[in-house]
Amino acid sequence: MKTIESVTYDGSKIILLDQTKLPNEEVYLEVEDLKDLWDAIFELKVRGAPAIGIAAAFGLALFSNQLKTDNSLTFVKQCREISETLASSRPTAVNLFWALRRMETILDESKSVSELKSLLDKEAHAIKADDADICKTIGQYGLTLLKDGMTLLTHCNAGGIATANKYGTALAPIYLAKEKGMNIHVFADETRPLLQGARLTTWELLQADIDVTLITDSMAAMVMRQGKIDAVIVGCDRIAANGDTANKIGTYGLAVLAEKHGIPFYVASPLSTIDLETKTGETIPIEERKAEEITEGFGKRTAPEDDVMVYNPAFDVTPNELITAIITEKGIVHAPYEKNLKQLFK
Amino acid sequence: MKTIESVTYDGSKIILLDQTKLPNEEVYLEVEDLKDLWDAIFELKVRGAPAIGIAAAFGLALFSNQLKTDNSLTFVKQCREISETLASSRPTAVNLFWALRRMETILDESKSVSELKSLLDKEAHAIKADDADICKTIGQYGLTLLKDGMTLLTHCNAGGIATANKYGTALAPIYLAKEKGMNIHVFADETRPLLQGARLTTWELLQADIDVTLITDSMAAMVMRQGKIDAVIVGCDRIAANGDTANKIGTYGLAVLAEKHGIPFYVASPLSTIDLETKTGETIPIEERKAEEITEGFGKRTAPEDDVMVYNPAFDVTPNELITAIITEKGIVHAPYEKNLKQLFK
Repeated sequence: MKTIESVTYDGSKIILLDQTKLPNEEVYLEVEDLKDLWDAIFELKVRGAPAIGIAAAFGLALFSNQLKTDNSLTFVKQCREISETLASSRPTAVNLFWALRRMETILDESKSVSELKSLLDKEAHAIKADDADICKTIGQYGLTLLKDGMTLLTHCNAGGIATANKYGTALAPIYLAKEKGMNIHVFADETRPLLQGARLTTWELLQADIDVTLITDSMAAMVMRQGKIDAVIVGCDRIAANGDTANKIGTYGLAVLAEKHGIPFYVASPLSTIDLETKTGETIPIEERKAEEITEGFGKRTAPEDDVMVYNPAFDVTPNELITAIITEKGIVHAPYEKNLKQLFK
Repeated sequence: MKTIESVTYDGSKIILLDQTKLPNEEVYLEVEDLKDLWDAIFELKVRGAPAIGIAAAFGLALFSNQLKTDNSLTFVKQCREISETLASSRPTAVNLFWALRRMETILDESKSVSELKSLLDKEAHAIKADDADICKTIGQYGLTLLKDGMTLLTHCNAGGIATANKYGTALAPIYLAKEKGMNIHVFADETRPLLQGARLTTWELLQADIDVTLITDSMAAMVMRQGKIDAVIVGCDRIAANGDTANKIGTYGLAVLAEKHGIPFYVASPLSTIDLETKTGETIPIEERKAEEITEGFGKRTAPEDDVMVYNPAFDVTPNELITAIITEKGIVHAPYEKNLKQLFK
C-alpha cells in the first residue's frame, strides 16, 4: 500500500492532494498564497475535519513566514488576521478553529519575529505529527470493537485522506485489522451530493486491498434489514459537550436506521473534534452549500433550470442517544457523554 | 398546466415520452417494434408501474396487429409469446404482468383474428382510460388526508408521467389540492441512482406551479427532525397480500425515518399494483440493475474503475407495519392489511 499524504508542507508551499479530482486523477496542488488555500478548503480540494485543521496550520506557518515586518506586535496582529481569514473558510468542522487556536498560542509578542516564525513552523509540523499518532491510537481502540469477518458500513470519507496520515479516523480500525490479517468487508455509502464515499472511500480501501461494496445512500436501510451490516462507523466534524455529533449529511439518518436494526453505531473522533464549548448539537453551525452541488454535481444538469428550490445542508447532527460509542485516542467513550467526554480533557 | 402524456398509441405506433432525457429535453419516441419497446421499458425510457403496464398493453395491441396469420390458434399463440417477451422486461412492478394478463383474457381462439385484433386494441385503450379515472379517484381519497399549508415528502416519481394521465398516484392528491387552491409544499428526494425525483418530480410539479424543494435522499432524516415534513407519500411497484410494499430503493429507509419522527407514511396504489398472489414482501422479486447506474450515472466516472463491487437493487420492501395507510381507488385502507386489502377485490 503506497502512502498517500493529503497535506504536506515544505517551508515554501503547501502541497494538497486535490480530492475533487479523485478517483479519476491523482493531482497535487501547490499552494503559496492565502486566497488559494482559502479556496482549496472552501471547494473541498482538501477536506475532512483533521485535514483542514492541518492545512490551516500549515497555512498560518507559510503565510506568516511571508510577512515582511520585523516588528513582533505588527507580526502577531497580521498573523491573527491570517488566522481569522482561514477560519472563515468553513464553519462546521471544529478542527479548523482548534488548529488555528493551537497555532495562536505561539503568538507571544515578547519574542522576535524570526523566533515566532520558527515556532509557528514547528507547531504546524507538530500538529500533523500528532494527528498521525492520534489516528493510529484511535485505530487501535477501534480494533477492539471488531471481529474477523465483520462487515461495516461507513458514510462519506473519514480515511487517511480526511486526515494527513495513512489511517484516518473511522477507517483506522479497518486498516489496522487488515494489517493483522483480519478480513473486514466494508459497505461505502456513495454520499451525495459530493460523493466522498464513491470517490474517496472506495479508492482508499481498494489501494489497501480491502473489500468494499459501493451503494447509494438510499440503500443503507435495505442492506441493514438484510442483516449484512454488523456495525456502522463514521468520522465527525464536531462533537458537542453532550455527545451530539455533526457529521456529513446523511449520518443522522444512518444512526436512526442502525438503532432500528439493532446495529451498533460508532463515531471515531480525535479530541480535537470534541468541542466542549458547544453545549449541544443545536448550536453547531451547519454549513449550507450551493444548489449546484445537487443540481449540476456532475457537470450535467439533473434538475429543472428554473424555479426549483434546493436545500443543501452539508452536515446533520446525530443526537447522543443514537451513538453506541465514541472512539478517541484516549479510549472508547460511552454514555453518559456529558460526563465522560469532559473526563477526557482532565 | 399543459397535459403531458407519457404513453399514447395511434394504432400504428406507440409514442413514449423519453423519461431518461428529462428535464433537459422533452423528446418523444415512436416505437413500432417489440425489441424497441422492450428496450424502452428496460432502460426506463418509460417508467412508473402504471405507465409500463399501459405501454405493454399498447405493445401487445400493436405487435399483435402486425401479425400476418389468419389462423386464430396461431394468432393467440403468437400473442402469448409477445406477452411473455414484454413481461420479461422488468421483474418488480406487478402492473406490467397485470396489464398483460388483462389483455390475454381477450385471447379467445373461437374468435376471428380480425375480431381479436380489434378487441385487443380496445382493451389497451380501456386500460389507459381506466388508469386516468383511477388516478383521479386516488387523488380524491388522498386529498382527504391533506390540509392547506402542509408539507409532504415524496420519493422517486409517482406523478402523471409514472402513469399515463395528468394526476399520477402519489402526486394526485397534491395536484387536486392545487386545483382547489390549497397551498401544499413538496420536498422531493432526488432518488439515486437514476434521479427520478430531481429530474421528473420537480419538473412535473413546477409545471403545475407547485412549490417544490429538492433534497438529496440523505437529507430526508434531517428535514424530518427539523419538523418540516407533515407526511410522506409515495407510489409503489407491488403490494403483497399482507401490505408489504415494494417501491423505489430508499422508500423503506424513509418509512423507518417517518416512524421515528411520528410522521404518517402513505402509499398511493391502484388495485392493479396490489398482488394478492404474492403473500409477503419477502417473495417480491427485486430487480438488481447494472453497476454503471451508480458509478457512471452522470456520464462521468464517480468511482474507481476497477475492483469496486457495487450493489444496485432498484427497489426495497417496506413492511406493512410502517405504512399508515394505502390510498386506492376504492378508498383508504388501514391495517390489518391482509384482511382489508382482500376486501377491496370483493
